[in-house]
Amino acid sequence: MATQPANLETHTTSLNLRRYLPFLDWLLHYDTKNLSGDVIAGIIVAVMLVPQGVAYALLAGLPPEAGLYASIAPLIIYGLLGTSRSLAVGPTAVVSLLVITGIGSLNPANTTEYVEMALILALQVGIIQLLMGLLRVGFLVNFLSHPVLVGFTSAAAIVIGFSQVKHLIGVDIPRTEHFYETLVEIGQHLGQTNITTLTLSGISVLILLLFKLRLGAMLLRWGVSASVAQVLTKTGPLVVVVIGTMLVFGGSLYQTNDVAVVGDVPAGLPALGMPSLDINLWQQLFPIALTISLVGFMESISVAKSLASKKRQKIDANQELVALGAANFGAAFTGGYPVTGGLSRTLVNYNAGANTGLASIITAGLILLTVIFLTPLFYYLPNAVLAGIIVVAVSGLFDFKAFKHAWAYDHTDGLSMFITFLAVLVVGIEMGILVGVAASLVLYLYRTSRPHTAIIGRIDDTEHFRNVQRHSVTTYPQLTLIRVDESLYFPNATYLEEEILGLVADQPDLTDLVLVCSAVNYIDISALEVLEKLIHELHDAGVRFHMAEVKGPVMDRLQQIGFINELGQDRVFISTHAAVCQLT
Amino acid sequence: MATQPANLETHTTSLNLRRYLPFLDWLLHYDTKNLSGDVIAGIIVAVMLVPQGVAYALLAGLPPEAGLYASIAPLIIYGLLGTSRSLAVGPTAVVSLLVITGIGSLNPANTTEYVEMALILALQVGIIQLLMGLLRVGFLVNFLSHPVLVGFTSAAAIVIGFSQVKHLIGVDIPRTEHFYETLVEIGQHLGQTNITTLTLSGISVLILLLFKLRLGAMLLRWGVSASVAQVLTKTGPLVVVVIGTMLVFGGSLYQTNDVAVVGDVPAGLPALGMPSLDINLWQQLFPIALTISLVGFMESISVAKSLASKKRQKIDANQELVALGAANFGAAFTGGYPVTGGLSRTLVNYNAGANTGLASIITAGLILLTVIFLTPLFYYLPNAVLAGIIVVAVSGLFDFKAFKHAWAYDHTDGLSMFITFLAVLVVGIEMGILVGVAASLVLYLYRTSRPHTAIIGRIDDTEHFRNVQRHSVTTYPQLTLIRVDESLYFPNATYLEEEILGLVADQPDLTDLVLVCSAVNYIDISALEVLEKLIHELHDAGVRFHMAEVKGPVMDRLQQIGFINELGQDRVFISTHAAVCQLT
Repeated sequence: MATQPANLETHTTSLNLRRYLPFLDWLLHYDTKNLSGDVIAGIIVAVMLVPQGVAYALLAGLPPEAGLYASIAPLIIYGLLGTSRSLAVGPTAVVSLLVITGIGSLNPANTTEYVEMALILALQVGIIQLLMGLLRVGFLVNFLSHPVLVGFTSAAAIVIGFSQVKHLIGVDIPRTEHFYETLVEIGQHLGQTNITTLTLSGISVLILLLFKLRLGAMLLRWGVSASVAQVLTKTGPLVVVVIGTMLVFGGSLYQTNDVAVVGDVPAGLPALGMPSLDINLWQQLFPIALTISLVGFMESISVAKSLASKKRQKIDANQELVALGAANFGAAFTGGYPVTGGLSRTLVNYNAGANTGLASIITAGLILLTVIFLTPLFYYLPNAVLAGIIVVAVSGLFDFKAFKHAWAYDHTDGLSMFITFLAVLVVGIEMGILVGVAASLVLYLYRTSRPHTAIIGRIDDTEHFRNVQRHSVTTYPQLTLIRVDESLYFPNATYLEEEILGLVADQPDLTDLVLVCSAVNYIDISALEVLEKLIHELHDAGVRFHMAEVKGPVMDRLQQIGFINELGQDRVFISTHAAVCQLT
Repeated sequence: MATQPANLETHTTSLNLRRYLPFLDWLLHYDTKNLSGDVIAGIIVAVMLVPQGVAYALLAGLPPEAGLYASIAPLIIYGLLGTSRSLAVGPTAVVSLLVITGIGSLNPANTTEYVEMALILALQVGIIQLLMGLLRVGFLVNFLSHPVLVGFTSAAAIVIGFSQVKHLIGVDIPRTEHFYETLVEIGQHLGQTNITTLTLSGISVLILLLFKLRLGAMLLRWGVSASVAQVLTKTGPLVVVVIGTMLVFGGSLYQTNDVAVVGDVPAGLPALGMPSLDINLWQQLFPIALTISLVGFMESISVAKSLASKKRQKIDANQELVALGAANFGAAFTGGYPVTGGLSRTLVNYNAGANTGLASIITAGLILLTVIFLTPLFYYLPNAVLAGIIVVAVSGLFDFKAFKHAWAYDHTDGLSMFITFLAVLVVGIEMGILVGVAASLVLYLYRTSRPHTAIIGRIDDTEHFRNVQRHSVTTYPQLTLIRVDESLYFPNATYLEEEILGLVADQPDLTDLVLVCSAVNYIDISALEVLEKLIHELHDAGVRFHMAEVKGPVMDRLQQIGFINELGQDRVFISTHAAVCQLT
């Protein structure tokens, strides 16, 4: 018996260690039957990630190597610290968009300053996410509602798509601050389209769509096994990169037809370095970093959770923040830029059989080898092909069905979604999200400001009471039972008062009114004031006020402030049934 | 029978007319037994309003006549259009504070421009309130919660009090943007105090406090009737104005002791005129006008409502907006500045026996006579006395008890109040209110983001089910009844999922889970997605998911989107009792 407390303590410590270092669960006693899945998934994700990394760096306005560097250290760190067994971390389209719009709005003087800002951003995102995780405030992201997220992602897909038009048509279109300006600029530059570039990007997009939409079914028809077919459909980006590079190199298109190519990519490991600590830059970048931290985390946690539940694994939101924060630290010190868990690569990783964080670490190792040995191959890789990869990747993010579904379920949800979508397009990414969040809150408050109330009556000879307008129920003369279907708080307190007074005015012989509080989860002080006033008003009108089914936590507060004593203990009933028995 | 529709129509028209022209109710068939009350109340309010009007104009940074002009046309208009029989409209301390901080922040070049801006503000407030009333969006003011209002008013009282220190001590202290700067300035100028001025203001404050706190009881003890005593206690401002003016005039204090006086006040009617339509000024002033419109309306409606309920009269919030808006139009075209219903004057009006809008019209007539004949008397009226009137008037607005009460009832309400209070002092009036509103919303969302959930069981042999932790109840093996005490929406959807999954993990032999929705007033689409996911997760864990007591409006949506069909009609029970009967 004496040793038990000590044992318990050891147990707790090891639980805590395991919470913060999830790799203790799988690395120390690595189960070799997981190995083949991890290795295959690691390789396939690497094949996807090399072209995507370069493409997303281009989208983010960064040199190509930044996308590759961001795919090494962060993956190893997340692999060790993350609670998801299949999340594939790295550069993503949405975060890249946030980087280019954020840094772009600050007008950096040159590429060096731009890269510097991206590193600061990664460090800030790392700090914010790490702190959020350690302070266990991951629940804050729940304030980004489903409509806001879908509206934002759909708008981001459109913004990203149009941002690639300049690469697709091979024309140097200046970057603009607002989406509609981009549309105008594109219109004005369409006439200068480089036909060779357009052909190249057209071919790339066609091949990519073929891989994405048709190849799977074709391979299955040809007798290829489902798992191999699934792997092969993910090699589209690699295929178009190889074809595009060969076409440009073989036809010398970069010289004769002015086709833009990636050019020199430095070989070898990224240089380790501390991002600048310039206080002005830190201040200017902070709001952007905050947006990336929250949006990036949402993107990541939603895919991680949905896959984990399939395998009955558990995702710890706060530990995820710690792991993503640490991964961003890794990006900041090794020449990368902000990273998060990406939707499509994670699905590939999961389907290819990733069982542990080892898959991520294997991917990182392969990207490392690419950076050391293969960078010369990128020289003739045309930007048009990369733009094609981006456009096809984000095309799936625009979710028209979700708009219809939300609108059908509840117009206010549909409206939130559409407002966010439109706001992101019109006022820009960050303000757009803020507008969306504000709209979803205001719509919610508006809804609660005119709560549903129901006069209720007894169903047959049960003790159950329901709305007189929806059910066939027994009612009582001189006694009205009113159920209010909302917490009583400042936006609706006055409305309720007016409802009840109107009701009383319509029934001159009413003597008793019971407020059924089964749906009242909270009474705030604004509503308390109104309630006290209402009771006096009813008293003056000769109507006794009672309450029934007051919930425990609500009752506690009302007791403590003296409200119940003032009203009279005998005016509060445990159930509507008890109230009716007493008052009739 | 054939004529009935026509009759009905006439009836409706007259109802509509009466809604928009409430004076039709009392003026056309004026009941002469109301006359004495209206006349007496009209006179007493005028006696209060003359010194207050001049004092509040001083507080607002305007020439003294602006306060008098704002007490003529607006009172007549409100008297005809308002639904409150006793509301006393005119300049108030809080609106005057909003005017000086608002216009002051725009740095007008001279007094002419300052006065012009005040007229534009009145017109804008008129337009905003009129539109809000006609569009019937008066409910919007409910978003200003009780804690925000009390916090704001208490802070405003302090800001107003300290803004008068320069007049009380007779030193020219420059106006500052922030409250703490005012404190610093006062500290630096204390040494220059004009002793004669300080003596004058000291005497004024003492006399005013005597009238306010002691005179009533003294008069009653001397055998004066209660109603006369009540009237006499309200003459304090007039008394100190007369005494102050005589002291200054008799002792030539303005020359020998440098005591600041009101000086020339133009005699005669205000000049009619249209405020400037300068688009720039209109834009700059708009946010200030919006604040005044909302805060002024809140101030007015709350006192109007509380008095109307005493006499069982009805206040129509939207018609009140129309009437106040029209009153502000009146102020804008007759050289006034924004007006609203004032707390203290309204109480006086009510207690002195005001029965109809005629009382207001009589007050206006008396102010008109004052403006025509009595303005020369104001020349020697010392600013120190006016400042004393202001300080004593606002001293009652600081409500320390309300802070204690709110904190005792619920810390989050107390916190909202204190945050608003502090924000108004630190970041300024308008931003302070915004911060307060935002804080009250965020605190509300935070509260709903971790809803109270209760495992419930049957009470004795009733059909009533309550929390197992608060009541002695019967529970069932393999069946868990969980009641969630909150609408399911984006801030809490994920939390609920985690709660339920945790619960299931703790009970390995659980087969059926019933979500009791008696307190779920709404399920938004974010929560719907989580719910669908949760059902699959429970299914995989071998637990059947049921729902009970789903409210009508919630059920309608779930039916319509196909959720109920997917779950199975037999999984949804009308009552918890029915679910238990079926599942055990």
